[in-house]
Amino acid sequence: MSFPAELHLRALPGFPQVTDGADLASLTVEALRRAALQLLPDDVLVFAQKIVSKSEGRRIELAEVTPGAAALELAQTVQKDPRLVELVLRESRRVVRAAKDVLIVEHRLGLIMANAGIDQSNVFNPADGEFALLLPEDPDASAARLRKRLGELTGREPGILISDSFGRPWRIGTAGVAIGCAGFPATLDLRGQEDMFGRPLRITVVGHADEVASAASVVMGQANEGRPVVLVRGLTLRAPSQPAAALIRPQQQDLFR
Amino acid sequence: MSFPAELHLRALPGFPQVTDGADLASLTVEALRRAALQLLPDDVLVFAQKIVSKSEGRRIELAEVTPGAAALELAQTVQKDPRLVELVLRESRRVVRAAKDVLIVEHRLGLIMANAGIDQSNVFNPADGEFALLLPEDPDASAARLRKRLGELTGREPGILISDSFGRPWRIGTAGVAIGCAGFPATLDLRGQEDMFGRPLRITVVGHADEVASAASVVMGQANEGRPVVLVRGLTLRAPSQPAAALIRPQQQDLFR
Repeated sequence: MSFPAELHLRALPGFPQVTDGADLASLTVEALRRAALQLLPDDVLVFAQKIVSKSEGRRIELAEVTPGAAALELAQTVQKDPRLVELVLRESRRVVRAAKDVLIVEHRLGLIMANAGIDQSNVFNPADGEFALLLPEDPDASAARLRKRLGELTGREPGILISDSFGRPWRIGTAGVAIGCAGFPATLDLRGQEDMFGRPLRITVVGHADEVASAASVVMGQANEGRPVVLVRGLTLRAPSQPAAALIRPQQQDLFR
Repeated sequence: MSFPAELHLRALPGFPQVTDGADLASLTVEALRRAALQLLPDDVLVFAQKIVSKSEGRRIELAEVTPGAAALELAQTVQKDPRLVELVLRESRRVVRAAKDVLIVEHRLGLIMANAGIDQSNVFNPADGEFALLLPEDPDASAARLRKRLGELTGREPGILISDSFGRPWRIGTAGVAIGCAGFPATLDLRGQEDMFGRPLRITVVGHADEVASAASVVMGQANEGRPVVLVRGLTLRAPSQPAAALIRPQQQDLFR
């Protein structure tokens, strides 16, 4: 296995606002064309979770959410809107930590994350009501669909990552992670490889898609930068593709708990 | 605050083996020259922890380590060499988790990590004895020294990161993190910024140096790729410099515990 010695990341300029039902692949092809870029072999495209969710109609109007008893009680603890808490609970398997301003859950996808990934930033114009945006139903499937559709439109199927920003235990600040993945090795398994003196490597599995998602996050920005799609060029790995679900550590295997 | 729209990462080719007492800044200047690269304003250099430790003489011969009673007992639990466990305990404030093949500690620097970051891969030729490599004594100070020395040699002080690969709770695989930082904003504080509709941003602090360290990790590789220094070009942030210590979340503020 050989790692690339150079990597280039470029946010596609002028990506338009994404609305419910938008064809993200077509918007991406147009954005590539405007930037005079063609997809090359081994190119990877990283999509911010937010625009994938928007294109899949995962925006929920809060006026239509009725919080149940559990949400009402939890909302008192975390001091959040009970309708948002209701959505978080619907999207979650269990609450990991609840305190004032803090609601960490295990998302139904297995992700341990704040607020089940539900976000309101850049999601609605207050003149239209109040909305919240859920994660895609199945981000790995979303990535696979994007990859297939881009293949149909361009004749070239790039690797696809869907990225989000996660808070982390023990570390300050968020880092990009991959919640969806297609045509890309979510992890790199180095087991069996040796160091230069023939000793087995200490590090055996690399969270490759998370590292690339973190790299893409640097050029996406977090606010209203309008750069939700990043072209990553230079990756030459030939490891087998895996979904981003491969990055989720089963609870019973978690060495840190 | 404006995020860069493009980022370029390049591992310096042909970086030599680093030995005790090596002048890492001089080796870097030579490697830049061989690659016909000059430092530009805003350039950042990411150094693998391993070569910083080596240059600072942090290699310990295990034959000279006598494990104490605590190390002998813990070594039984984790099934590791008692001399290594002794070094781990000397470098740590407390043991976070110990089980067969697992030894997670709080390093004296505050980092929660496996084996106190002590590594043996690519550290010694078995013909010379058995060695282990500790983290730098003070990685932020190491980064500051490298930055100053590079400034003396080149007339330009680049941003400096010292990176390591950490396992992560809940996620499979390692990701690059910054354990040392100079002339670079370890975190980006977006508090007070608004989305495109005037709502406060959900994400308020970004683990910027960790994201850049993860990006660099992609081109460093993990094995004997011989690419321990990465030039990162394109960052244009004007946020204040912070040490990597700013990325360590105080235990009492950890939202996930």
